Amino acid sequence: MASMTEFRRVADDVRNWGRWGDDDELGTLNFITAENVQQAASLVKRGKVFPLGVDFGSSGPQGAFKFRHNPLHVMTIDGGDANTLAEFGPKWLQNPLAREVSSYYENGPMRFNDDIIIMPLQAATQWDALSHVYYDDQLYNGFPASSVTSLGAFHCGIDKVDCKGIASRGVLLDICALRGVGTFCELGDPITPNELDEAARTQGVIVARGDVVLVRTGWWARFLETGDGGEPGAGLDWRCASWLHDHEVAAVASDNLMVENPVSGVDGVLLPMHMLCLRDMGLMLGEYWDLTALAADCAADRVYEFQLIAPPLRVTGGVGSPLNPIAIK
Amino acid sequence: MASMTEFRRVADDVRNWGRWGDDDELGTLNFITAENVQQAASLVKRGKVFPLGVDFGSSGPQGAFKFRHNPLHVMTIDGGDANTLAEFGPKWLQNPLAREVSSYYENGPMRFNDDIIIMPLQAATQWDALSHVYYDDQLYNGFPASSVTSLGAFHCGIDKVDCKGIASRGVLLDICALRGVGTFCELGDPITPNELDEAARTQGVIVARGDVVLVRTGWWARFLETGDGGEPGAGLDWRCASWLHDHEVAAVASDNLMVENPVSGVDGVLLPMHMLCLRDMGLMLGEYWDLTALAADCAADRVYEFQLIAPPLRVTGGVGSPLNPIAIK
Amino acid sequence: MASMTEFRRVADDVRNWGRWGDDDELGTLNFITAENVQQAASLVKRGKVFPLGVDFGSSGPQGAFKFRHNPLHVMTIDGGDANTLAEFGPKWLQNPLAREVSSYYENGPMRFNDDIIIMPLQAATQWDALSHVYYDDQLYNGFPASSVTSLGAFHCGIDKVDCKGIASRGVLLDICALRGVGTFCELGDPITPNELDEAARTQGVIVARGDVVLVRTGWWARFLETGDGGEPGAGLDWRCASWLHDHEVAAVASDNLMVENPVSGVDGVLLPMHMLCLRDMGLMLGEYWDLTALAADCAADRVYEFQLIAPPLRVTGGVGSPLNPIAIK
Amino acid sequence: MASMTEFRRVADDVRNWGRWGDDDELGTLNFITAENVQQAASLVKRGKVFPLGVDFGSSGPQGAFKFRHNPLHVMTIDGGDANTLAEFGPKWLQNPLAREVSSYYENGPMRFNDDIIIMPLQAATQWDALSHVYYDDQLYNGFPASSVTSLGAFHCGIDKVDCKGIASRGVLLDICALRGVGTFCELGDPITPNELDEAARTQGVIVARGDVVLVRTGWWARFLETGDGGEPGAGLDWRCASWLHDHEVAAVASDNLMVENPVSGVDGVLLPMHMLCLRDMGLMLGEYWDLTALAADCAADRVYEFQLIAPPLRVTGGVGSPLNPIAIK
Repeated sequence: MASMTEFRRVADDVRNWGRWGDDDELGTLNFITAENVQQAASLVKRGKVFPLGVDFGSSGPQGAFKFRHNPLHVMTIDGGDANTLAEFGPKWLQNPLAREVSSYYENGPMRFNDDIIIMPLQAATQWDALSHVYYDDQLYNGFPASSVTSLGAFHCGIDKVDCKGIASRGVLLDICALRGVGTFCELGDPITPNELDEAARTQGVIVARGDVVLVRTGWWARFLETGDGGEPGAGLDWRCASWLHDHEVAAVASDNLMVENPVSGVDGVLLPMHMLCLRDMGLMLGEYWDLTALAADCAADRVYEFQLIAPPLRVTGGVGSPLNPIAIK
Repeated sequence: MASMTEFRRVADDVRNWGRWGDDDELGTLNFITAENVQQAASLVKRGKVFPLGVDFGSSGPQGAFKFRHNPLHVMTIDGGDANTLAEFGPKWLQNPLAREVSSYYENGPMRFNDDIIIMPLQAATQWDALSHVYYDDQLYNGFPASSVTSLGAFHCGIDKVDCKGIASRGVLLDICALRGVGTFCELGDPITPNELDEAARTQGVIVARGDVVLVRTGWWARFLETGDGGEPGAGLDWRCASWLHDHEVAAVASDNLMVENPVSGVDGVLLPMHMLCLRDMGLMLGEYWDLTALAADCAADRVYEFQLIAPPLRVTGGVGSPLNPIAIK
Repeated sequence: MASMTEFRRVADDVRNWGRWGDDDELGTLNFITAENVQQAASLVKRGKVFPLGVDFGSSGPQGAFKFRHNPLHVMTIDGGDANTLAEFGPKWLQNPLAREVSSYYENGPMRFNDDIIIMPLQAATQWDALSHVYYDDQLYNGFPASSVTSLGAFHCGIDKVDCKGIASRGVLLDICALRGVGTFCELGDPITPNELDEAARTQGVIVARGDVVLVRTGWWARFLETGDGGEPGAGLDWRCASWLHDHEVAAVASDNLMVENPVSGVDGVLLPMHMLCLRDMGLMLGEYWDLTALAADCAADRVYEFQLIAPPLRVTGGVGSPLNPIAIK
Repeated sequence: MASMTEFRRVADDVRNWGRWGDDDELGTLNFITAENVQQAASLVKRGKVFPLGVDFGSSGPQGAFKFRHNPLHVMTIDGGDANTLAEFGPKWLQNPLAREVSSYYENGPMRFNDDIIIMPLQAATQWDALSHVYYDDQLYNGFPASSVTSLGAFHCGIDKVDCKGIASRGVLLDICALRGVGTFCELGDPITPNELDEAARTQGVIVARGDVVLVRTGWWARFLETGDGGEPGAGLDWRCASWLHDHEVAAVASDNLMVENPVSGVDGVLLPMHMLCLRDMGLMLGEYWDLTALAADCAADRVYEFQLIAPPLRVTGGVGSPLNPIAIK
């Protein structure tokens, strides 16, 4: 168990503030150059597509936090309405919406369905924006925490980063395979920097500047089996922040709730890796990415690199975003 | 003005039901093969990325329909809370959420922001799912309209298509440039199949099977200037459905509300092209895609083809999805 | 265990369709006359007020049904924003809301907080509208079930009944006291019509036409102790529908999830009392009413009647409504 | 036009901080005694009920503020679903909600409808909580503005006041009648304290300690005619705060957006009366109350006093609440 002092020393080491200018809100995405983008596209050999996003709806894993529920998908107009709306809608003075929809239905055969979603931006497959986690009243690059008001994140919102695609080379590090545990790394030893190195070496891949690193722990596959969204599993040790810093990785994502290990390795500190990555390094975390099919394919052809396109929605001032990342081999 | 009889004759011509099997819910996305995916990636020459998604938030264009409002982005926890939550949260018996958040803050320096979005799935940059529009009680491929209940679309939901990426070659047809109108095709003559052909010819690009065609009308740029989300502009003539059918296009998207022309060309029929594309052909429509920067780049280098990755969120039973499409050249 | 046949025979007996005209959507609220209203007010002797509504928020009992979550209360503007909005809001082009709020703050000392609630209409203290439950494709008074579309209940919505106040005499029947179980009637024997009679007799009160009957089972008090919203408790036997019919009661409410017993007394039929009351009799059910303080007062002064004012929100086409019922003695 | 200095002098005059103790969060509701409650009930002579709440739904007046939209009422289950859910629901693995609902439908004839509302707490008929508006970093009674976080109002939330019913004598002051303008007091001269006195005198009613004063300006009737929720009308001059203070009124409500006049009478100060009433006096404001039918009845029988029951929902930490106030004569 590390001390707070040690945590702060590491924070000083990995801090990228000012590295790309005082106004920078991209952080380590700056590592992705046009050359990275072009080289990532060149990895597409077979035209095989792997969507890494999970289902958004009532089957999700939420429930542990009171501030995050599963996406609530509600129909505003559905297929059962069509034949009766024409009868009741036009008469419904208090319901302009009913009159609007029935006016469409009175004018020809066209019928439609429409829907709404109510969801925490981090309910399912997601990016954490740099403004998601902080300490000492400052966000990444020293922006004041108070710049995140009820109206969203003025600085370091998720809307600041889509200019990067986010498209780059993705590299899968399969810890389930490394540990030989089959489908799930149970809670216990956190995943260490050494294991990341070893996984890369075993798989024959070299993590390079600008890569998006995907770490498979098997958590999502386990959840699909059990339906238990609250079961913890092994995640990255907080010291992996330094590893990501040294490798000049652009971003990191995993198939679990929070990339990092649920049990903190720093005494009296929750989410140390979140703080180091998001706030000090300016490195985004991707969570709840389903890596199962991709990992199976990589194991089969022994190719652990691919083009990765992971575009967040440009939610104004969002401190996270749902997305559907696409890996292409 | 065409008659309903003519509309139905065209519908018979372009209908793809059964073409890819009775269970098919992919429609014209079936045109995208692994070869298409691979060839699209090979178009990436300069590593230049164009996000085509617009802002999701209060700056959006919604307001015309009572069933669609702008995305409502609300913070559940923000930067102004941190310093006072520790004082009040723990005492707040009726508010378990306050106690939960303050319990985190009592344990070390970690602070966080979190947020929720409430949005029509078609509020901003979007895909229409095949279940969005229909007639004669049937969806694409003959699935019953009644299979879309309050619980979503059992058939032809947006969650059925992400296996395709959606990644393929994108081709921009710039109608603003063709018509020489600068930034916006005002409402007036709808965009005809001939104009699509001419735009392709002028630009030196050949639309091929499996392409995603992006049609620039300038609507989004106009909206950014005026802030008027209700101003109509020229869209595709309904007969373009046949053109898309003949070219075996995988999908079509535009920078406006509904791809097709706001004034229907079929007597007594609203949204004829929606009905033909979504319901008869099984061809998805993309709306509110911002094509401005991409068009400027294409005009500069005279290359109108690119890799396009446009992944919808896998909303269970969604009849549409927000997304951030990425074009890469 | 009764049979479906018996259920249908009782349904025929208690059915009030046509009793107050073919267009009636008030049902047994018709029993409340001006005289009832006046007489109820005359029961106010001490000016003592009992709010029967529970907390709306994250402390609620929801969780058992996927279609009902606890009320989600979110601030759109809060007290932490004031001092920083003036700095960032005006600069935020993509966020018209931020500019709007900061424009207020630039003009003088006024600051404000504002909020939104997202809630199932039956998440906490509530009325079931007559359109909430039905069978055989018909609502109360024979209205077609299809008149409830995605746009709400055209017939028998909660918006149809507030003309009644709902203000009348309330009568508390304290089953906890009758059974001598202290604070909670555990799941086991359902509460029978005989028990209702006996409670009234013991308490020295006579249930009369137009009364709103409040049945205390102690469920809410138990929930406040345990926090377990899923624990079942004893509720009314389905045959109490006939009792309510015979007494020409205006409405019935209880301190639990569904007034009636969780274990159905009719073979193969869920919620038999809901079907009889709402659909056949046109009698509204009130749920999650906190009767603890009121019951204590009644036990102390032996007066079990009072003025009851229980106004639903006039939600257009709502099939239920949250409310805060007020008893006055 | 008054100066800020004058505003602050009035604020000092009307400030009730400490008047009912340092912990008080009831403000002027403290004026309501058991005697008031009892006496108000005694005013019920004819048993005539007037619901003062408006429709909650798409017909509402919202649109002017980006932080307030009309209530969005959405069905989670409706009458069109019943006959097809049994077919598709059980098969829908990704949709546990569909499986849950269809499991009910497989077990007997019971069918149900359910719904959700998404609404600003001040979208329609409402109470402002004392925490809604403030200045100089302090709420009513000196509580810090920072006690209102993203998690709601720890102090002076709407959940603090329902113990009062809110039940007391209501007194209608009909300014439309006083001014002889028929149905609507157009924007122009604000309503002065003298006019309040004169209206009371003309109507033969004396405003007394603990009353809830209802001021009719005709705005809601006008809105129902025009559908224009943005049209301003005359409201109370800010000096009416002193009048309300002197009369020891418990609360005030009106049929318009904000009780007070839209054009501020204090130089460089928005919403001066809101600040004085909510923050200095601790006096709640009721807005969008429909007084049309009540006023007609009062004009007919010349009785302008009645029992008023106006219970807010106990939204945990809410800075306002929807309600349906009931007047009984």
